[in-house]
Amino acid sequence: MTVTRPTLLVNSRVARSNIRRMASKFSRLDVRLRPHFKTHQSLEVGRWFREAGIRSITVSSVDMAARFMEDGWRDILIALPANPAKTPRINAWPGDLTLHLLVDHAVAVERVAARLTRPVEMWIKIDTGARRCGLQPQHAEEIMALVRLIQCQPLMHLRGLLTHAGHTYAAADPAGIRDRHNQSLAEMARLREWIRNAGGGEMEISIGDTPACSVCHDFPGVTEVRCGNFVFYDIMQYRLGSCRLEDVAVRLICPVIGSYPDRNEVVVHGGKVHLSAEGIAGEDGTRFYGLVAEFASTNPWPAPLPGARVRSLSQEHGVIRLGRQKAADFLPGDLLALLPVHSCLTADLATDMIDLDGRRIDAPAAV
Amino acid sequence: MTVTRPTLLVNSRVARSNIRRMASKFSRLDVRLRPHFKTHQSLEVGRWFREAGIRSITVSSVDMAARFMEDGWRDILIALPANPAKTPRINAWPGDLTLHLLVDHAVAVERVAARLTRPVEMWIKIDTGARRCGLQPQHAEEIMALVRLIQCQPLMHLRGLLTHAGHTYAAADPAGIRDRHNQSLAEMARLREWIRNAGGGEMEISIGDTPACSVCHDFPGVTEVRCGNFVFYDIMQYRLGSCRLEDVAVRLICPVIGSYPDRNEVVVHGGKVHLSAEGIAGEDGTRFYGLVAEFASTNPWPAPLPGARVRSLSQEHGVIRLGRQKAADFLPGDLLALLPVHSCLTADLATDMIDLDGRRIDAPAAV
Repeated sequence: MTVTRPTLLVNSRVARSNIRRMASKFSRLDVRLRPHFKTHQSLEVGRWFREAGIRSITVSSVDMAARFMEDGWRDILIALPANPAKTPRINAWPGDLTLHLLVDHAVAVERVAARLTRPVEMWIKIDTGARRCGLQPQHAEEIMALVRLIQCQPLMHLRGLLTHAGHTYAAADPAGIRDRHNQSLAEMARLREWIRNAGGGEMEISIGDTPACSVCHDFPGVTEVRCGNFVFYDIMQYRLGSCRLEDVAVRLICPVIGSYPDRNEVVVHGGKVHLSAEGIAGEDGTRFYGLVAEFASTNPWPAPLPGARVRSLSQEHGVIRLGRQKAADFLPGDLLALLPVHSCLTADLATDMIDLDGRRIDAPAAV
Repeated sequence: MTVTRPTLLVNSRVARSNIRRMASKFSRLDVRLRPHFKTHQSLEVGRWFREAGIRSITVSSVDMAARFMEDGWRDILIALPANPAKTPRINAWPGDLTLHLLVDHAVAVERVAARLTRPVEMWIKIDTGARRCGLQPQHAEEIMALVRLIQCQPLMHLRGLLTHAGHTYAAADPAGIRDRHNQSLAEMARLREWIRNAGGGEMEISIGDTPACSVCHDFPGVTEVRCGNFVFYDIMQYRLGSCRLEDVAVRLICPVIGSYPDRNEVVVHGGKVHLSAEGIAGEDGTRFYGLVAEFASTNPWPAPLPGARVRSLSQEHGVIRLGRQKAADFLPGDLLALLPVHSCLTADLATDMIDLDGRRIDAPAAV
């Protein structure tokens, strides 16, 4: 395994174990797992999910849906409110594909419906706290008007209500995640009942965030979950309490290009164009951009170096502050492996992805 | 011009004017402009520089050097400390290419030299304040040892001392940029004199940051400047005082996918995988991720909407807080244009790049 530029190393044993754990949890709960494939965007990693019995997936763009459709996936939800300009493109997709769209606005329904020539499954996006997309659950009349509008469209089949409780990411700990999860589910359940009583029919419920799917045990009334990050996890999820450090399944291997004993730092080729610019506050409040481990083809997956942090990133440089280790131990030409703060963004940027045997895995940004 | 997904719009008139202004400034000063092409990474934009008389360029990786070499560039500096593992690759490059490498460590020199089979121009990286790569200028003995080591390598030709005064980015205003620029130049001049007196010969001086190249007028003793961001500029440079808002030459066109009058916000398809996760603190201390303008093919480049800000980004979503305008004026299917905080990272992520006539420009991440 010869690595000469920043390369994403995937521990397939850890990733497959993350997949199996989540699949068996939701199988026991009789809740459909529709994993979000934006985290890995890899056809091969997608097949690991298929081997675990997964048949339904989530993606975050029409382009990503096309990619997985071509690899045989036939039940795909695009978890971004529908972009009417994409209607001609999805019209051209095969009839045996079950395609799910999201809406939260009458104009989106009208603009999509005006050009739609194929059946689609529809979900109404509800905002239970993330303050990104979705209708407020207390605006039941407005939501009911959208229910009626969708039910009037001959090619649209309304499936239910969908939320992403993204405010779990702002929780301080697993108890906070559970509180927000329960609040979100309670609002969804009340809304479902309101719609049923108003004659809108029975709504399925789809929810989505990895923190809640990782730490919560109760999913009453939920039809499906759309978590995605859990396949790789990352430092952000570890800090939230969603996973153990040993569940983080990706590391960016980076060539060392500088060693600075005076400040006990080394610099690697590996920057914002590889890891993304995403940072996170450490225990002492100082922002950092990843943890650090050694890398050798004979020992590709050692425990992270105690106290070592990616202190700053620029476009192609990563500056690493070491802990107990000495900067002088790492020289230009050596390799280090960085544990990313946000694996979804790191994987999105990956041009090279390999497993622990050095075998190539198809990567989102492969050139 | 039909835009259905996040697309980088380049105002070629503004970009070419930025190029001409910088080229004529350094031509008057008799300083070589070796622009950093990591900002745009586009062959076509590279040709705009060629038309402005530029023949020497800077890149940030071996891959990027290869891309521009194939387009006819014959004087390329790779502004990342040399990665010894890349030596076999650069050995294979044409003999008429003048290739410049950076080093700040004896081991890098030794490991590169051990496998080098072609002549290379060498620069010693000096750290005048960025605290990223480079030797401290006060460690003149150590630097002199590196001078001697390079001068002993038959295929290495030592050109001089190189710095990137990246600490200008932390300056509060143009006066602060000038102070740091002058401090950096003074340290480089003292070091050059020390090396000359110690018998190391005459060193050229190469410096690099866009803030100083934009706002400073004095470059005594400087052989070349390697600024790059100025071709597009961005909100970060505007906030530093490096440019006017109308000098920002790129905008990301994004489809509107949600409109939320209650909170006067709209959501676009356009997130961290398009703009990067780079934010900046606003006047009131609140972090934001871009400015916002309308977009129509009949009026593709209007002034930004007063008070409108990209408030948050997730992987594919951008949340825009409007100012005086009403969210209800922007509906799913409409288009908006975002002015990026950091144009280098935004361009790096671009799969689609077009000019104001809708003509395609080759983009770094084109798929």
